[in-house]
Amino acid sequence: MEGEPTLRLRIFDLNCWAIRYLSKRRQQRVRLIGDTLRQEGFDLVLLQEVWSEQDYSDLKVKLAGCYPFSHYFRSGVIGSGLCVFSRFPILDTLLYQYSLNGYPYMLQHGDWFCGKSVGVTAPLLSLSLQLHAEYCRDKDAYLPHRLVQAWELAQFIRHTSKAADVVLLGGDLNMHPEDVGIRLLRGWTGLQDAFAEAMHFEGCKNGCTLVPDNCFTDKSELLPFPLGIRIDYILYKAISSFTVKCEELKTTTGRAPGMGIPFSDHEAVMATLHIQRQGQPAGASLGTADLALADVVTEARAEVGVGLQAARRQRYSSGRMAVLALLLLLLQAAAALGTLAGLGTEQPFPKLSFCLLAFLALGVLVLATGLHLFHTMEVKMLHGTEDQMWMVLRALQERP
Amino acid sequence: MEGEPTLRLRIFDLNCWAIRYLSKRRQQRVRLIGDTLRQEGFDLVLLQEVWSEQDYSDLKVKLAGCYPFSHYFRSGVIGSGLCVFSRFPILDTLLYQYSLNGYPYMLQHGDWFCGKSVGVTAPLLSLSLQLHAEYCRDKDAYLPHRLVQAWELAQFIRHTSKAADVVLLGGDLNMHPEDVGIRLLRGWTGLQDAFAEAMHFEGCKNGCTLVPDNCFTDKSELLPFPLGIRIDYILYKAISSFTVKCEELKTTTGRAPGMGIPFSDHEAVMATLHIQRQGQPAGASLGTADLALADVVTEARAEVGVGLQAARRQRYSSGRMAVLALLLLLLQAAAALGTLAGLGTEQPFPKLSFCLLAFLALGVLVLATGLHLFHTMEVKMLHGTEDQMWMVLRALQERP
Repeated sequence: MEGEPTLRLRIFDLNCWAIRYLSKRRQQRVRLIGDTLRQEGFDLVLLQEVWSEQDYSDLKVKLAGCYPFSHYFRSGVIGSGLCVFSRFPILDTLLYQYSLNGYPYMLQHGDWFCGKSVGVTAPLLSLSLQLHAEYCRDKDAYLPHRLVQAWELAQFIRHTSKAADVVLLGGDLNMHPEDVGIRLLRGWTGLQDAFAEAMHFEGCKNGCTLVPDNCFTDKSELLPFPLGIRIDYILYKAISSFTVKCEELKTTTGRAPGMGIPFSDHEAVMATLHIQRQGQPAGASLGTADLALADVVTEARAEVGVGLQAARRQRYSSGRMAVLALLLLLLQAAAALGTLAGLGTEQPFPKLSFCLLAFLALGVLVLATGLHLFHTMEVKMLHGTEDQMWMVLRALQERP
Repeated sequence: MEGEPTLRLRIFDLNCWAIRYLSKRRQQRVRLIGDTLRQEGFDLVLLQEVWSEQDYSDLKVKLAGCYPFSHYFRSGVIGSGLCVFSRFPILDTLLYQYSLNGYPYMLQHGDWFCGKSVGVTAPLLSLSLQLHAEYCRDKDAYLPHRLVQAWELAQFIRHTSKAADVVLLGGDLNMHPEDVGIRLLRGWTGLQDAFAEAMHFEGCKNGCTLVPDNCFTDKSELLPFPLGIRIDYILYKAISSFTVKCEELKTTTGRAPGMGIPFSDHEAVMATLHIQRQGQPAGASLGTADLALADVVTEARAEVGVGLQAARRQRYSSGRMAVLALLLLLLQAAAALGTLAGLGTEQPFPKLSFCLLAFLALGVLVLATGLHLFHTMEVKMLHGTEDQMWMVLRALQERP
């Protein structure tokens, strides 16, 4: 970037909703996405929910001409679903998996199996990511997990971006703009929201990316939000002696430009950024907002604390269940031994119900032990995050 | 650090082997470690295998006077076992969990349950860590996992240390100095080995940290290595305009200084470093060693490839087992339905063996499915690491 007065960077971000066998008209949509990307010639393309490696390979072949560099991030059982296509060389990549990501037994929510993560490509520090989905806004059991993810993401960005010129983040954060997780992420990293900063905006009202006009969205989810919600973001930050300005932000509006169907159930977000070198390194503007930041961290820490209490309760009850199942098994073993020793021979031994009960107890024991281990991990991670937040709060308060 | 001509930094690193109920004379040893640390007054103390939070709390109380700053890293079911005590403020921490860490069903090896990770404290970038243990050197099934960890660690250090002045790493790497994982870590990060660089050394021959003279070591493990092995390291690197020199390196020699028993089954490693600001930023010396580095990465990638093949085989066989169990269940369901429909009523239905078989099939199905999911994740992570290594190799080869 050195030597050039201004770099104009066009970024495309989309949650592709490309789940094999489940997403509607997946192949057609992936073809459409590929065609559009080839025509439009962006500089950087950040895609999420490309769950099938075959789809990635097809896109890679199609886009080899205009995006010679690409990377697919593998993690979890299904994969991270993240991939990046770039006009600039990708010299290095790094994958950071969040320590908490839902529950393996919530099969219908599936987040656990995806190994949600953030993929980083260097030298232009661009991050593609997806956080845990929100399934019920009123009673959001995953809020503490999403906050841990937002916190880990913020910490990760702070630690990896120190020597970067520019940080770009695109993805489905699964949070509304005013949610505590977004405020935490933005406050703690200093990332700016392309939608809020854009000099020119074109697209869905309020920059929404999940809108009723899109034929693939779940209309019942959007009932409380008739205009739609904004959960896909492009965020950016200039670190060293650079400035970044957002010239233009666009979203698709329920269908792909000039096409009959949308790219996905999410709208695509497209930003045009101007990156310019400036003489003076930008001072850390974080200090001025310390007080507001401390409030956000306190709020987030309280939510994590709520999650910690719930996790402790679940750990306790699964542990108790395991102990009960073990006791039942021991009792049965004693009864069986008693019968073998010749006690109570006046009645026939109920073999079938004995076996059924033993297997049931064994099943409960295995399941409850697994749950107990899982919730123990959850408690550790929530507790660790609470600690880290406390340390940051103390540091914020001690600043002059 | 600015303004001071030389900073003399004394570092203590120890794998404490403090497993509740399992480690011999744990409480006595933890007290001894605390007493020694208080007397000696190091600047930075990196401890591993402090599995009990109570032990950490006791140490924290005892050391509050001379090490006012400390942090305990929580992760996994049992914990990471990592903690740091420091004379300098710890302003920020970050925990990075390796994506692969052994197998949950290898209960006797336990690594999976620990959530092995690397803990980072800032602003002085110090890392405390432990990699997967080696249980059998000749047939080391965990080598690919340890290589993935070494690679992730190296990537993590590269990405987090860009703006740091000095990186310090202390821990039990579970690798001999000439092992490919150590060469990979050192080659790819440029970290220097305090033992090799020390102007003055005092301690076990060859810097060994697992020695036969230690009454807690497993003598059978050390049979092929009569002098002992070196698996605990202090590594360091100056990044920006600083130089680091290792003035002195010491290890304990089978017992704590002046005491009857050792601190742990590992020897402690103590380094005295001189950190000095210099006028010119040190040039990246990595370029000169590109060729050797490429060789190491190629070697490591081959080992990861071997692990990938093994993981694919295991994924396949567990998947096949799950399918067979499912088929058996379906067959049983058909038989039961047949009986209900009144077929084969001339013979009594063998309820007990039917139930036993059904539960067995169900158990195998659940277990095999779990294994299949786990090995799928393993394949993803090994494949992802192989990809990343390939990308780095290409970049190394394309350098002028």
